[in-house]
Amino acid sequence: MADVAASDSRLTRAGALTSFAVAALGAGGASAADAALAAEVLVAAELRGAAAHGVARLPATVRALREGAIAARAAPAVLRESATAIALDAGNGLGAPAAKRAMDAVIAKAGQLGAAFGTVRNNNDIGIAGWYAELALAHDQIGIVATNAPRSVVPTFGRAALLGPNPMAFAIPAGAEPPFVLDFATAGPERSAGRPLPLGGAGIETSGHKGYGLGLLVDILCGVLAGGAFGPDLPAESDPPPGRTCQFFAAFQVAGFLDVASFRAAMDRELRSVKDSQKSPGYDRIYVAGEIEDERARMRRERGIPIPNSLWDDLQRLAGELSIPFTLH
Amino acid sequence: MADVAASDSRLTRAGALTSFAVAALGAGGASAADAALAAEVLVAAELRGAAAHGVARLPATVRALREGAIAARAAPAVLRESATAIALDAGNGLGAPAAKRAMDAVIAKAGQLGAAFGTVRNNNDIGIAGWYAELALAHDQIGIVATNAPRSVVPTFGRAALLGPNPMAFAIPAGAEPPFVLDFATAGPERSAGRPLPLGGAGIETSGHKGYGLGLLVDILCGVLAGGAFGPDLPAESDPPPGRTCQFFAAFQVAGFLDVASFRAAMDRELRSVKDSQKSPGYDRIYVAGEIEDERARMRRERGIPIPNSLWDDLQRLAGELSIPFTLH
Repeated sequence: MADVAASDSRLTRAGALTSFAVAALGAGGASAADAALAAEVLVAAELRGAAAHGVARLPATVRALREGAIAARAAPAVLRESATAIALDAGNGLGAPAAKRAMDAVIAKAGQLGAAFGTVRNNNDIGIAGWYAELALAHDQIGIVATNAPRSVVPTFGRAALLGPNPMAFAIPAGAEPPFVLDFATAGPERSAGRPLPLGGAGIETSGHKGYGLGLLVDILCGVLAGGAFGPDLPAESDPPPGRTCQFFAAFQVAGFLDVASFRAAMDRELRSVKDSQKSPGYDRIYVAGEIEDERARMRRERGIPIPNSLWDDLQRLAGELSIPFTLH
Repeated sequence: MADVAASDSRLTRAGALTSFAVAALGAGGASAADAALAAEVLVAAELRGAAAHGVARLPATVRALREGAIAARAAPAVLRESATAIALDAGNGLGAPAAKRAMDAVIAKAGQLGAAFGTVRNNNDIGIAGWYAELALAHDQIGIVATNAPRSVVPTFGRAALLGPNPMAFAIPAGAEPPFVLDFATAGPERSAGRPLPLGGAGIETSGHKGYGLGLLVDILCGVLAGGAFGPDLPAESDPPPGRTCQFFAAFQVAGFLDVASFRAAMDRELRSVKDSQKSPGYDRIYVAGEIEDERARMRRERGIPIPNSLWDDLQRLAGELSIPFTLH
């Protein structure tokens, strides 16, 4: 996990990266508030080591803003709202603002009555789903977020890419231990003909149908429930914006079931019992979800974030295109 | 999927199997209502083809009732209750009654305010989780159920069996298509040293850490949140009752997001788009979650349920032990 700058990358500071992303998104036409939020989520991905959701996405996003493929000044519209539900239309804006607004609303509603759900349709890439789920933690709530995504994954026994990697994220508070944050793509790392397979693999022998089922579940909870794009109506992975993606949000109070202090203490016992259990030969550590990312983020805040040289050059080129100073160092 | 009786099994009717299970559970000391419910859930598993959760569990359950290892006349106690949450203690009763009571309460609360969550602690085997999630369907709600279970699954990089197969079930209404019912163990069929591996397999190369993460998620949402047994406090798979298991329930109204007719029509489009998509070479059909089980249940209701000869003999022996008529035929 050591992040000394390798010869093919350079280290930069989270603050510098955030400032540059804010400036670039602003030059693309985003409001100051939207640019700040989207930049924060991109840099959060870099800090955790989820580089695929990090500033590598910045050049294409800023160009899409400038071309109007993403609406720079979209105002999310409320389609339905009740004491425990909110449905938004993002108006094809930057992904993060509508997603944050939905999660904030869900958390506020759960703070009032104990539980709430939300959807967003007609949105673009929101970055790491876990970032939004974690917003529930400070409110002693459990947060759940899912998003559908451009199509790349093939159903079990199928040939057509009908599903995205469709991540789900669950954030649960703990006590002295870092929170449990399970943020995972329902596609696995295995590939067939260049395409990611569902979690579990290609067939039913390795439970690939479960990963496919989870991917379809996310497409339903997001696209179908939001009244937005799902299945074949989503763009393919290689298509440019608009992404047309939809999101699903939920939050509920721990205190509905157990007092918060008891819950936090029990979470610490649960997480430690797993981490302290016997290790498999050749391994000296068992991780729980969110732990690697939490440690990496602490280290990268202190020592810097490695940016591959080719991405560094891309960002420098973007600065030139936008006539903004290239402030990474 | 054809269920003509093979030479190693005999066909029986769902009705006859249910009546026998009711009589056996009653002879074990369960109330008529509890026996009827538990029998219904066992036979539902048989109809769907989930034989591991079917009447094979009846002899051990009835013996545990007679020995007092499961409390025959437990009355679930309400630990906490609000407009959107309910926490029950099952009092070490048969699994189904407390689970059904919690899901019914969650559905009723979601019917009032739109969304609700529930937990049960100190319970025993509830059978197939999907049965309870499906209770939401008739109310135009989406149902979610999970349960922890006796320990058999090893965490990624670990050696100790700290997690059960910990299933999750999601039930979502459709229109003309059967409902989407994803009911899956977070363990996969792959085994190592006789123990099931997490969904995804042994290591992180095949995403086994995601299945392990899901299994731990279920243990947290059930055991920790319910204030019950989790992790090492659960019995091992080979231990007799009490199971000490805990469950998690959620339900929310479709109408909070979209009118129900539009949602059902969109679900049909979603499910058909997947089923009608191009097939992988050698396969002539793509299934969606719940479809195989739905078709099998229809066929078994009509033609009968195959009971392996050895199980048939076990049930006959149980009838003798209980001095009740053996009414399977």
